[in-house]
Amino acid sequence: MSTGAERLRDVPVGIDATGTRTEHDSMGTIEVPADRYWGAQTQRSLRHFAIGERMPTALYRAYALVKKAAAEVNAELGALPGWKVAAIVRAAEEAMAGALDDHFPLHVYQTGSGTQSNMNLNEVLAARANQLLGAEPGARAPIHPNDDVNRSQSSNDTFPAAMHVATLAALDEDLIPAIDALAGAIEAKAFAWMDIPKTGRTHLQDAVPLTVGQEWSGYAHQLSDALARVGASRGGLLELAAGGTAVGTGLAAPAGFGRAIAARIAAITGKPFVTAPNKFAAQASLDAMVATMAALRGLAVALMKIANDMRWLASGPRCGIGELLLPENEPGSSIMPGKVNPTQCEALVMVCIQTIGDDAAVAFAGSQGNFELNAMRPLIINNVLRTCRTMTEACTAFRRFSVEGTALNRARIDEQLGRSLMLVTALSPEIGYDRAAAIAHHAAEHGLTLREAATGYGGVDPATFDRLCDPAKLVGSGLAGA
Amino acid sequence: MSTGAERLRDVPVGIDATGTRTEHDSMGTIEVPADRYWGAQTQRSLRHFAIGERMPTALYRAYALVKKAAAEVNAELGALPGWKVAAIVRAAEEAMAGALDDHFPLHVYQTGSGTQSNMNLNEVLAARANQLLGAEPGARAPIHPNDDVNRSQSSNDTFPAAMHVATLAALDEDLIPAIDALAGAIEAKAFAWMDIPKTGRTHLQDAVPLTVGQEWSGYAHQLSDALARVGASRGGLLELAAGGTAVGTGLAAPAGFGRAIAARIAAITGKPFVTAPNKFAAQASLDAMVATMAALRGLAVALMKIANDMRWLASGPRCGIGELLLPENEPGSSIMPGKVNPTQCEALVMVCIQTIGDDAAVAFAGSQGNFELNAMRPLIINNVLRTCRTMTEACTAFRRFSVEGTALNRARIDEQLGRSLMLVTALSPEIGYDRAAAIAHHAAEHGLTLREAATGYGGVDPATFDRLCDPAKLVGSGLAGA
Amino acid sequence: MSTGAERLRDVPVGIDATGTRTEHDSMGTIEVPADRYWGAQTQRSLRHFAIGERMPTALYRAYALVKKAAAEVNAELGALPGWKVAAIVRAAEEAMAGALDDHFPLHVYQTGSGTQSNMNLNEVLAARANQLLGAEPGARAPIHPNDDVNRSQSSNDTFPAAMHVATLAALDEDLIPAIDALAGAIEAKAFAWMDIPKTGRTHLQDAVPLTVGQEWSGYAHQLSDALARVGASRGGLLELAAGGTAVGTGLAAPAGFGRAIAARIAAITGKPFVTAPNKFAAQASLDAMVATMAALRGLAVALMKIANDMRWLASGPRCGIGELLLPENEPGSSIMPGKVNPTQCEALVMVCIQTIGDDAAVAFAGSQGNFELNAMRPLIINNVLRTCRTMTEACTAFRRFSVEGTALNRARIDEQLGRSLMLVTALSPEIGYDRAAAIAHHAAEHGLTLREAATGYGGVDPATFDRLCDPAKLVGSGLAGA
Amino acid sequence: MSTGAERLRDVPVGIDATGTRTEHDSMGTIEVPADRYWGAQTQRSLRHFAIGERMPTALYRAYALVKKAAAEVNAELGALPGWKVAAIVRAAEEAMAGALDDHFPLHVYQTGSGTQSNMNLNEVLAARANQLLGAEPGARAPIHPNDDVNRSQSSNDTFPAAMHVATLAALDEDLIPAIDALAGAIEAKAFAWMDIPKTGRTHLQDAVPLTVGQEWSGYAHQLSDALARVGASRGGLLELAAGGTAVGTGLAAPAGFGRAIAARIAAITGKPFVTAPNKFAAQASLDAMVATMAALRGLAVALMKIANDMRWLASGPRCGIGELLLPENEPGSSIMPGKVNPTQCEALVMVCIQTIGDDAAVAFAGSQGNFELNAMRPLIINNVLRTCRTMTEACTAFRRFSVEGTALNRARIDEQLGRSLMLVTALSPEIGYDRAAAIAHHAAEHGLTLREAATGYGGVDPATFDRLCDPAKLVGSGLAGA
Repeated sequence: MSTGAERLRDVPVGIDATGTRTEHDSMGTIEVPADRYWGAQTQRSLRHFAIGERMPTALYRAYALVKKAAAEVNAELGALPGWKVAAIVRAAEEAMAGALDDHFPLHVYQTGSGTQSNMNLNEVLAARANQLLGAEPGARAPIHPNDDVNRSQSSNDTFPAAMHVATLAALDEDLIPAIDALAGAIEAKAFAWMDIPKTGRTHLQDAVPLTVGQEWSGYAHQLSDALARVGASRGGLLELAAGGTAVGTGLAAPAGFGRAIAARIAAITGKPFVTAPNKFAAQASLDAMVATMAALRGLAVALMKIANDMRWLASGPRCGIGELLLPENEPGSSIMPGKVNPTQCEALVMVCIQTIGDDAAVAFAGSQGNFELNAMRPLIINNVLRTCRTMTEACTAFRRFSVEGTALNRARIDEQLGRSLMLVTALSPEIGYDRAAAIAHHAAEHGLTLREAATGYGGVDPATFDRLCDPAKLVGSGLAGA
Repeated sequence: MSTGAERLRDVPVGIDATGTRTEHDSMGTIEVPADRYWGAQTQRSLRHFAIGERMPTALYRAYALVKKAAAEVNAELGALPGWKVAAIVRAAEEAMAGALDDHFPLHVYQTGSGTQSNMNLNEVLAARANQLLGAEPGARAPIHPNDDVNRSQSSNDTFPAAMHVATLAALDEDLIPAIDALAGAIEAKAFAWMDIPKTGRTHLQDAVPLTVGQEWSGYAHQLSDALARVGASRGGLLELAAGGTAVGTGLAAPAGFGRAIAARIAAITGKPFVTAPNKFAAQASLDAMVATMAALRGLAVALMKIANDMRWLASGPRCGIGELLLPENEPGSSIMPGKVNPTQCEALVMVCIQTIGDDAAVAFAGSQGNFELNAMRPLIINNVLRTCRTMTEACTAFRRFSVEGTALNRARIDEQLGRSLMLVTALSPEIGYDRAAAIAHHAAEHGLTLREAATGYGGVDPATFDRLCDPAKLVGSGLAGA
Repeated sequence: MSTGAERLRDVPVGIDATGTRTEHDSMGTIEVPADRYWGAQTQRSLRHFAIGERMPTALYRAYALVKKAAAEVNAELGALPGWKVAAIVRAAEEAMAGALDDHFPLHVYQTGSGTQSNMNLNEVLAARANQLLGAEPGARAPIHPNDDVNRSQSSNDTFPAAMHVATLAALDEDLIPAIDALAGAIEAKAFAWMDIPKTGRTHLQDAVPLTVGQEWSGYAHQLSDALARVGASRGGLLELAAGGTAVGTGLAAPAGFGRAIAARIAAITGKPFVTAPNKFAAQASLDAMVATMAALRGLAVALMKIANDMRWLASGPRCGIGELLLPENEPGSSIMPGKVNPTQCEALVMVCIQTIGDDAAVAFAGSQGNFELNAMRPLIINNVLRTCRTMTEACTAFRRFSVEGTALNRARIDEQLGRSLMLVTALSPEIGYDRAAAIAHHAAEHGLTLREAATGYGGVDPATFDRLCDPAKLVGSGLAGA
Repeated sequence: MSTGAERLRDVPVGIDATGTRTEHDSMGTIEVPADRYWGAQTQRSLRHFAIGERMPTALYRAYALVKKAAAEVNAELGALPGWKVAAIVRAAEEAMAGALDDHFPLHVYQTGSGTQSNMNLNEVLAARANQLLGAEPGARAPIHPNDDVNRSQSSNDTFPAAMHVATLAALDEDLIPAIDALAGAIEAKAFAWMDIPKTGRTHLQDAVPLTVGQEWSGYAHQLSDALARVGASRGGLLELAAGGTAVGTGLAAPAGFGRAIAARIAAITGKPFVTAPNKFAAQASLDAMVATMAALRGLAVALMKIANDMRWLASGPRCGIGELLLPENEPGSSIMPGKVNPTQCEALVMVCIQTIGDDAAVAFAGSQGNFELNAMRPLIINNVLRTCRTMTEACTAFRRFSVEGTALNRARIDEQLGRSLMLVTALSPEIGYDRAAAIAHHAAEHGLTLREAATGYGGVDPATFDRLCDPAKLVGSGLAGA
C-alpha cells in the first residue's frame, strides 16, 4: 500500500517558521519553538530540568549512529517497512554529521536513564524524517517517535550503547592519538638527551646520577603503560546492551535484534562491537564505564608526575633547580616584570586533579544502581566525555607549548652533578656502607667535595676514586635502566 | 597638567572594526580580533590554553568589582590621578553589569594563579577606558593595563579576593535563597502531615511508627543545619588577600592599601569584608575556599538522603513502598507506556554525587600550594561556582516540580502501618524484651497480626494491648521528636 | 522488696573460668569463652562478622559513659530501681576507665546501626553488674542486658550519642592540643626568623623577597584557621540523639529522658552537651560527623602544604633549594651512605593523603542514610577516631623531630636572595612594567645581576637602584604581611 | 678460607635475653630490646614514627622472599660468598614462614620509600643469620645488614618489588578465590531461580517482568567481569623494579641482577615475574599499584549494587518489597524485639565505601612522585593489602551468612507480578505507544488491573491480551537475557 508519503524528498535541514507550534505526547499538549524539530517530551524536560550544563553533543552523534543501526536492523528483521527506515536513516545520518546539533538542548541533570535525551533524539529524527516524507512538523506521522524511531528499543538498553559508542570515538579519535603524540615527543627528548648525566634525586634529596634521557624515558614509559591500560578498558566498551530493551529480556524487540544491531554498529564504525553477553548486568551497571574512567585516572596520575617533575626541574631560574628551560609563552606575572612561569604544567596538573575528582564521582555513581537500572548515566557519560576532551586538549597544548620547546641548562646540570656527594655509593661495595657514610658526612660537615673527603679523610686512593666515581660510568645500561 | 585625554566621552560599549589589530606586550606583538577589547596577553592565553571550559563569567564580574575598588583606593592614596581612576571605574562598572562579558574568552585551565584572567580584565578595562578617553584600541595609553588598571595589585592577591567576592555573591544571591525555599517547602509539608502516623523504617526494615510530618521535619532540619554550616564558612571568605601583592608583603602597593580596599569592597557589596589578617596564608593557601566547598558538600550529603528517601517512599506504584505520590511531569519511558519515574530525585542525586566528586578535586587542589602561592586557583573557583549554580538550579527544580506537588497515598500508609509487627516494642517495657521478641517471631512465622499473636500466643490482655499499642500514642511529642 | 541481690560486692574485674559457657538470647543458645563477660549476641557477631579491624576501644569507653548517664537518668525518672542502677554504674565506670577493654572484641564491619557493639556493651555491663551483685555470669539476671542496661535506649539513638562523646574526647584531649603545640612551635620559628629576608617563590619561580619568619607565620596562621574550623565543628557534636530511641519519637523512654541524659553527660564530661533539637535528623543522618571529618580534612590540606614546603625548602643538600636544614634522625638510605631524607615530612604527607581519602569515605557513607537510620555508622566513627589518633601522633612527631630542630642555611638563603632578578618589581612603579620587564629579560639572557642590567642596559641611576631595591625594605610590615 | 663462622648452627628462633643491648649504625649507638633481632635503624624508626597502625605483616613475608632471591642471585653472580648466602636464605625462609613476625614492629607512616622497613628486615635477617653462624646479636658481622643482606639492592627497587609480590599473593591466595566462591554461590541461585518470573524495576518503579534467576545472573556476571579486571591488573604487578637499585640505573648491582632476581622470584612463587622493562618508571611511579587498586574499587562498585539490591529486595518484611528472605543470624535491635536486619549487606556496603575512599587515597598518593622516587609507598601498600583482606573476609561472610541462605518469598513475588501495570509494554507493538499509555494511566487512576483496563476502557480483545501479556513468555531467552 505505497503512497506518496513513502518517497524521500530533498528538503534542507531546518524548519522555516517562527513562534511556537503545539506538540503532544501521552501526557497532553505543550508549545515548542516552531523552528525546532523536537517535540513535547523534549520541551517538558527543558522546562523541568533547567539544571547545569548541556548533555554533550558527542553523545547525540553516537546515539544517532545507534538509531541508524536500529532502523536498519528493524528493516532486516521485518519490524519496520523499508521506506520508514530510509527516512529515519537519512535523518540519523544528518544527526551523526552534526547537522542537527542545535536541536538537542537538554541538560545533563535529567532522568537518570537518559530517556529524555533518547526521546529528544526520537522526536527530532521523527520530525525530520516526516519532513523528508512531506509531512508537517508535529505530525508524529507517518514516523512516530516511539513506535518507529524507538522501535525495538528502550532508553535502558540503547542509552548505554550510545555511551559506549561515544566513549570509544572519543578515545580512538581524540585522546589516544593525543597521548601517543605526547609520549612520542617525550621519547624524542629521551633519545636526544640519552647520554647527558645529571644528579638523580630521591626524597627530593641528591642521589646517584642517571642521564637526562633515562629520566625522560621513564616519563614516556609511564605514558605508554597508562595508554595500554586505557586500551585494555576498551574491551568492556565493545559490549553493547542494545537488544535488552526495558529490563534486559528483550521484550518488544524481535528475536536476534541484539546480535544484529551490534554487528551493524560494528560495520558502521569499523570497531569489533558485540552484543553484551549478559543484558541484566549491562543495563543495571555501568561497570565498563567505571573501568574506563579509572584508566583515564591512571593517565592523570602519570601525567601529574610528569608535569610536576618538569616544573620543579625548571624551577628558578636562579633560586631553584634550574635544569630545564621551558618555552616562554607569555609574561608570567601582572606585577613582576620578566617573570616566566611553568603555566602549561600547571594547567595540566589542574586537568589531572579534576580528572581524579570526576573519577570519584563516576565510581560513586556506578555503585548506585538499583535492580534493573543504574539511573546515574548522564552524570557518567558527561564526566567521561568531558575528561576525554579536556585531557586531549591539555596534552596537545602541553606537548606543543611545553615539551617540544623544552631545552636543557647544561651548565646547571653539570654544576649540580659535580657537587653531589652521593657518588659515594659507588665506593660502598668496595669499602663498606659504614665507612662510605662516614666519608659523606665528613664532606657535608666540612664543605668538601666528595673526592677531597674520600681521598683525604677517607684514605681512598685517588686513582681508585676516579675509577669508581666516574658519573658517566655509573648511569648504567641505556634508556631502560638496569 | 590636564589634557583632553582626561575627559570621559560617552562612547557606547563595542569596537566597530573587523579583521585584526596588532597588540603588543613585554614579549612582542600579536594579532587580536579587531572588535574585541582584549590585548596581547589574552590572545597568547587563548592560543596556548585552548583547553576545556571557559572561566565562569561570574568570576569576571566580581573581579571587576575588585578593580573598581582598587582604582578608587589608588585615587584615595594618591597612587593614580583622578581622571584615570574615573575612566577605569566606568569601565569596571560596565564589566560588573555584564556589558563586557563577551570580552572574557579565556579557559579555566590556564596559569594556576589566574594571572591570565587578571590580565584579560586589565587589558579590557584599559582598552575600554582608553576608548572612553578618546584613545585608539591597542594604544595601552593613557591607561596601561599593568601600570594603571593593575596598580598596587598582583594576580596573587587580587585573584583570590575576586574568588571570595564571587563565591559570596553566588552563595548569598543564589544558593542560600534556593535552599531556604526548599527547606521551607519541606517544612510546610511537615506541618501539613504532622499527625499522620506511618510505619518507621530502620535498616530498610519495618520499625516502630512515627508521623509523616516527623519524617519530613527531619529533612527540613538537616537542610537548615547544612545551611548553617554554609553560612559559617562565609567567615573565611570575608577575609581578602588584596594588598599583599606578589608574595604577601605588599611590595609596590602604598601603605594601608589592603585595609582600604577591603573597606571599599565592603562598602560596594554591603558585606563585612576585612583585609586578611595574614597575607602569606591568604595567598599561599585556598583554605577558606576548601572549607566552603566542604560545606557545599555537606549540603549534598543531606540532599542525597532526602532525594533518596523520596524516591524510595514513592517506589511502586504497585510493587514498592508507595507511600508518596510524586508529581507526574513527563512520560518516564520510551518503551513502557504510562510509566512515571522520580526523575527530579534522580537529577538531584546526580548533582549531589558530582558535588562530592568536585569537592574531592577542590581539596586535592587546596593541598597543592607551594611557597608563596597555591597555583590551583582556576580549578577551585570553577568548581565552587559551578556547584553553586548547579545546586541552586537543581534545588529549585526539585522544590517546584517534586516537593511542592508531592501527595500522600493515605490508603497505602495506613495499610502498612497496620501490618507492621514492630509495635511490639511498646509491650517490651511491660513484658520484657525476650517475651516480646517471641511474640513478634510467632506472628511472623504464622502470618498473624501482632494483636493476634500477642493476645493469643503471647497471653497479653487485649485491653492492655490496645492501650499500649495505639500508634497515635506512640509517635511521641511533636515534629522534633523526643 | 530488698534482697541480698541488691548489695554490691567487691569483686575484682575478671571471670576465673576456662572453656566455654552457654549463653542465650532471643534466637537461642550459643557457647562463649568462659572468661569473658560478653553474651550470645556478641558471640553471634564475632562468628558472622570476622571482617577487618576491631571497633576502636575509645568508642566503647565513650559508650560506657552514655550507659552510666542513662542508668542514672533511669533512676531519676523512676524507670529503674536504685540498686540496679548502682550496679550498672559501677560496671560502666570500670569500662570508662578501660578495665573492660578486653571484653569488646567486635569488628568495625558489622550491623550499620552499631547495635552489635551496643549489645556487646549491654551484655558485658549486665554480666559484670550481675557479678557485682553476686550472680553467675550468663544469668542475664537480676540485670538484663536489654531490659535494664539498655533501658529507655535504642542503638539508634545511643550509638550516635557515643560517637559524638568519643569524637569530642579525641578532639579535645588529643588532636587539638597536638595541633596547638605544632602551631606554637611553628610560630616560635616565625618569631625567631622574623627579620631574615629570603627570595620568595611563586609558581616555583623566583619572586620578590619576604622574610623567613613571614613565610612561617603563614604556616602558623593556616593551622590556627584550620583549628578554628575544627572547633566550630564541635557545635554539631554537642547535640545528642539519646532519647529518640528507635526512630526518634522516644518510644519506650520516659518523658524528658533526652533532655535529662544530655544534661547528665554534660555534667560528667564538663562539656555543654544538649539534646538534639530534632531527633529524626539526628538519627537518620550523620551530618555533624561528616562536618567534623571535613574540618579534619581541612587540617590535612593545610598540613600538607606545610610539610611539602619544608621538604622542598630543605631539598638538596647541594642540588636543590637547600634553605632549611632538617634534623637528621636516621640514615636515609639502605644503599646511599650519608643520605638524610625529610622523612617526617613524608610521613605527615601520607597521613594527610589518607585523611583526605578517609574523608571521602565518610562523606559517601553520610549520604547513604535511608528513612529513620543511617546505617553506615561504624565506618564513620572508625575513620574519624583513626584520623584523630593518626594525625595527633603524626603532628607530635613532626613537631618534635622535624619542626623544632629545623635550622636555616643562612649562606644559601643569602646567596639565592642576591641572585634573584625579581627585585626588578620594585623598579616598576617608577619606570613602568614594560621597561622593567626588558631589564629583567636582559639580565637573564646575559647572565647579569639585576643591578648590572638595570644600571647598564636599563639606564637606571645606581643610587636610585640601591634605594628602591633593598630587600630589607621590600619585605613589608611584619609577620602578618601587608 | 673457611672458618668456623661459615657453618650454619641449629639455633631455634629467638634471643634469650632481657633488658636492652646497644646497637649502632652510621649515626651512632642506641639501645634496643635485648630479645629482639632488630638493630639501630629499626629502633630509630620506632622512636621517631610512633604514628598509627603497623606495616602489614604480609609485606614483610613477601619482602623476605625478595631477600632470599636477592641472596641467591648474589651467590650466582659472585657478589656474596655461598656461606653468607646460606645463612641469609635460612633466615629469610623463617621470615617468609612468619616465624620472625614479632620482629617487624614498624608503623605505616615512616619514610616514604619504605627504607625503614627494608632496614628492619635487613637488620633482623642479619642478626638472625649471625646467630645461626654463632655470632652475637648486635655484631653486624659476619653478616652486615647493608653490605650483605641488602647487597645489590636499594629500598628504592626492592620495596616496590616486595609490594608487587605481596599484592599478588593477597590477590591469588585470598581475594580472587573468595570472590570466585561468591560469584559461584550467586550463580547457583540464578540457576535455581531461573524460571521464576517477577516484576522488574527501573528507576525503583514497576517495570516489565524478568525472572529472579535473570536478575541474579546479572549479579554473577558483574562479579566475573570485575574479577577479570582484577586479573588484568596482575600484569603490571608481575614487573619487578628489583635491579634498578637507587635510581633505576642499577648502580652497585652486578650486571644482569634485575633479570636474574625476577627469574628467581618467578621460580620461588610459580608466578611469571619479569624484570620491569623501564626501571625509571618502575621506581618513580606506583602506577601498577594504582591500577590494581582501581580494579579492586571496580569490585567494590559491583558488590555495592548487589548488596544494596539484596537488602532492598528483602525490605519489609511487611512494609517493603519483601521478595527475598535473608537468613536471620542475630537479633537486629536492642529495643525492637523480633527485628531482623540485612546486616551482612550493610557490612559489605561499608567495606565497599571504605574501599572507594581508600582508592582515592591511593590514586592521590600515586600522583605525588618526584624525580626518581614516589615516596608514598607505605600508604599505598597498606591500603591495597588491607582492602584485599577486608574484602576477602567480607565477601566470605556475605556468601556464607547471607547469599547461601537466602530464600524467596514466592507469594509476595507472585502477588507483585500480578499487580504491575507494566505488562502493557507487550501491547505496545500491537496497539501503539500512545494508546497503551492511555490504558496504563486509566488503570492507575481507577485502581484496575491492567487486564480490566485493557479489555474494558482499552477495547483490547481479551484473548489478544492473554496471548500478549503472559509474563512467562515475556522474560525472554534464558539467564543472559536478549
